[in-house]
Amino acid sequence: MKRALVTGGAGFLGSHLCERLLKDGYRVVALDSLYTGSRENIAHLAGDANFEFAEGDVIGMDKMDLGDFDEVYNLACPASPVHYQARPMYTTDTCIFGMKNCLAVAERCGAKLLHASTSEIYGDPLVHPQTEKYWGNVNTIGIRSCYDEGKRIAETIASDHARLLGTDVRMVRIFNTYGPRMHPQDGRVVSNFIMQALRGEDITVYGNGSQTRSFQYASDLIEAMRRYMELPKETVAAFVAKHSLGAPVVNTGNPGEYTIRQLAEEVLRQIPESKSKIVEKPLPGDDPKKRKPDIALAGELLGGWKPAVPLREGLAATIEYFRGRK
Amino acid sequence: MKRALVTGGAGFLGSHLCERLLKDGYRVVALDSLYTGSRENIAHLAGDANFEFAEGDVIGMDKMDLGDFDEVYNLACPASPVHYQARPMYTTDTCIFGMKNCLAVAERCGAKLLHASTSEIYGDPLVHPQTEKYWGNVNTIGIRSCYDEGKRIAETIASDHARLLGTDVRMVRIFNTYGPRMHPQDGRVVSNFIMQALRGEDITVYGNGSQTRSFQYASDLIEAMRRYMELPKETVAAFVAKHSLGAPVVNTGNPGEYTIRQLAEEVLRQIPESKSKIVEKPLPGDDPKKRKPDIALAGELLGGWKPAVPLREGLAATIEYFRGRK
Repeated sequence: MKRALVTGGAGFLGSHLCERLLKDGYRVVALDSLYTGSRENIAHLAGDANFEFAEGDVIGMDKMDLGDFDEVYNLACPASPVHYQARPMYTTDTCIFGMKNCLAVAERCGAKLLHASTSEIYGDPLVHPQTEKYWGNVNTIGIRSCYDEGKRIAETIASDHARLLGTDVRMVRIFNTYGPRMHPQDGRVVSNFIMQALRGEDITVYGNGSQTRSFQYASDLIEAMRRYMELPKETVAAFVAKHSLGAPVVNTGNPGEYTIRQLAEEVLRQIPESKSKIVEKPLPGDDPKKRKPDIALAGELLGGWKPAVPLREGLAATIEYFRGRK
Repeated sequence: MKRALVTGGAGFLGSHLCERLLKDGYRVVALDSLYTGSRENIAHLAGDANFEFAEGDVIGMDKMDLGDFDEVYNLACPASPVHYQARPMYTTDTCIFGMKNCLAVAERCGAKLLHASTSEIYGDPLVHPQTEKYWGNVNTIGIRSCYDEGKRIAETIASDHARLLGTDVRMVRIFNTYGPRMHPQDGRVVSNFIMQALRGEDITVYGNGSQTRSFQYASDLIEAMRRYMELPKETVAAFVAKHSLGAPVVNTGNPGEYTIRQLAEEVLRQIPESKSKIVEKPLPGDDPKKRKPDIALAGELLGGWKPAVPLREGLAATIEYFRGRK
């Protein structure tokens, strides 16, 4: 029976990954500091004899004995601005030491390591859509830098380990993803709109709501991660060489674009009892510009992978989850 | 008597800074791992009762007791591609832990901290000249990333400490700098050309030599550093606010541009006995594109500072230094 370690395993995405790994027949250890993750996210897995939760911080994982693993998934990091900006130095440390500690486990065990990077490494991109060869447009000294630059240096550390030590690293750059178990207070547009609609509060759209976003449903990302991890190391290496990527990185996201107003309208359509109205507020200066993934490489590498869950369907499942939490 | 700590104090720039601080009446502790620095660089300071050399790595400085300081200068890091690419993970660690350890000393002592950042944080810039507000164009997963991204995350860590803890950090982004005590094997164009000319070897110019570079003489940089450190914290903070910089960063460099061929010709003019000829070789794919500093902010902040040493004069002193080392 294969053993997998999932850091951030009690978080939004981590909990979905644990669930999937258990279904795929793995013995799973979920490590989580519970800073943004929660026991509730994994409560339904507690009865599974193949699941183990270890409360602990990935920053100090080098001092824990979690056993040996065949696969390591590094998902631990506060990922929404409201959380990572509350503790910027902790966020950077999580990126750096989380990466180093996962590499150490992978190197000790000869395990595969999948690292969850992010579209934030592209910053405020000057080209659209973003391919893996785009180097990004990121401020080193702003209030978002703790996360953006932290995630960037984690990629650097991982790729140097892969290059010099032959560590079997695979990286996904994750674009905007939503689904059940999103943190209700993460301040992002999907959770904001749903919570506002469920509470009957005004749905606030900034500007006229014509700016676009793309939304990947959680299960589509998890499917990409699992396919990526199933590939032999040689296949990944050949792919990196063929495309002169420098290191194994692929984008995962949903390239379908919706306007913010379309999202708000769909949320209201799916919550017919809501008394909420869509109201416009002035666009703030730091409103993130659009980002849109180019997922051609993920499709080629991952056996034709592409997002399968339409926004309407994903929103329905997410709203269902949030109904108990308004 | 004020006490200063200089990390990388036995390096090219660090040794010049130590010399200057002693002249300015400081008690100076130079910390250096001697990976690229050397005892020879500071041999002439050994007799000074106010100078102390501590052999040690900035990565482990938190385990050393070096005493208390009024000013900390963080110059420790391999800075030429030949050195930092030989030990990429060490280079990244130097950037991260060097910064953290210097911040800890500054915070414990209430000291001022000047951090030596670099024009490499701009990467392969898409705008010329580079101002401090340019965010850069840097690859996260290439063979230069260990240095470029390491230096970027160091800026991030320093600015978060300044913002959250009020640490008195000042940062300079140093553009191409040359002078006596450059490492003869650092593989950079000034040391390459001088060593080739002194040995009577061909001077290799890539392409037709029409690409331009800018060259700052070491003493001009040291003058900028000292002026920067003399400013009251409030003056620096007001300047950052006035220019919406986000953190105290200023470029230092010499905006005067020379073609590579002009540099080669000037080196040969100053070494009349040389039998070297200028030969052209094909331009390699990774040849760094031009970088040119915008130094308007440094001029405004540092009392009209600008580079004072012309290339001809700086080269003469550098050639004099290299003559004993061919």
